[in-house]
Amino acid sequence: MSTEERVREAAVALFAERGFHGTGIRDLAQAAGLSSATLYHYMGTKEDLLAEIMRTSLTALIAEAEKITGDPRERLVALVKMHVQAHAEKPRETTVVDGEMRALTGERRAEIVALRDRYERFWQNAIVDSLKARQLSTADPSIARLALLEMCSGVSRWYSPEGPVKLSDLTVQYADMALGMLGASR
Amino acid sequence: MSTEERVREAAVALFAERGFHGTGIRDLAQAAGLSSATLYHYMGTKEDLLAEIMRTSLTALIAEAEKITGDPRERLVALVKMHVQAHAEKPRETTVVDGEMRALTGERRAEIVALRDRYERFWQNAIVDSLKARQLSTADPSIARLALLEMCSGVSRWYSPEGPVKLSDLTVQYADMALGMLGASR
Repeated sequence: MSTEERVREAAVALFAERGFHGTGIRDLAQAAGLSSATLYHYMGTKEDLLAEIMRTSLTALIAEAEKITGDPRERLVALVKMHVQAHAEKPRETTVVDGEMRALTGERRAEIVALRDRYERFWQNAIVDSLKARQLSTADPSIARLALLEMCSGVSRWYSPEGPVKLSDLTVQYADMALGMLGASR
Repeated sequence: MSTEERVREAAVALFAERGFHGTGIRDLAQAAGLSSATLYHYMGTKEDLLAEIMRTSLTALIAEAEKITGDPRERLVALVKMHVQAHAEKPRETTVVDGEMRALTGERRAEIVALRDRYERFWQNAIVDSLKARQLSTADPSIARLALLEMCSGVSRWYSPEGPVKLSDLTVQYADMALGMLGASR
């Protein structure tokens, strides 16, 4: 594993466990087996590191979302399955992305918020297009998008691959629940 | 406002904004206008204070849930509306309760987890009873409960009373989405 990867893993673990503000540069350096000066050389400030983790995670989600095309309702199902799988497989990364946006400031914050908005637009478009195609019916598409994303992201807080539920069954149940909550015709 | 209330408000604000591990005793004392020693005299340790915030919040939710009786499907609707309203009205308290359980240790953790489990049992029972009464159909009631709670709790992360959505409309849309995701007959 490269030094950058080691630092990144340590930061993901500490930010997820103790929060951004609860993690000191020294904790990070120690967990990665580096001095604070060397850590700074490789990764910049703690906020640089947080932004880098979020950028990587959101860029990966956007790349997956871009592959999803076709029928609006099927797009929504595919987005739900992809998002649930990512949150089940990478609970710590996604916890950091979903929970620490408030810790970013200035340009970095603007950049990461823009990435998140870009990702959420795939969801908004799938919902709005499904409504237009009369495949779904929901009172307010924006509220539906927010509720759906919170529901799916929450998987990172409770799902365990050692538990009784197989990931493939989980994604199917989430897709069914998503269609139901958005008023899909049965 | 009593000293206890002032300390509690400061703690809720700081824990919600910076996380439990990101909040120092000195930050708390300063925000409440006390010395660290006086703060300790009133509230004990930082973990005592966190447990107290969670205990108060969960006990209030349980008290509300206990008032909800009758038809299973109507119980579920009432739980959703009550929970969404509480998370919209007290976003910081509920963020702390939902996000900082991991920071508790030992007996305090056991006590708070037991309270949370007691609260979630109202949801589990409403779902299971609705299934028995054939008012709902969902593949796995426990997954449905977790997904539903995450969806409803997520309101504390994005809802703003200054925004375009009235709280009374929000709770109605959430109740509709909840019934849909649990496969209510229309």
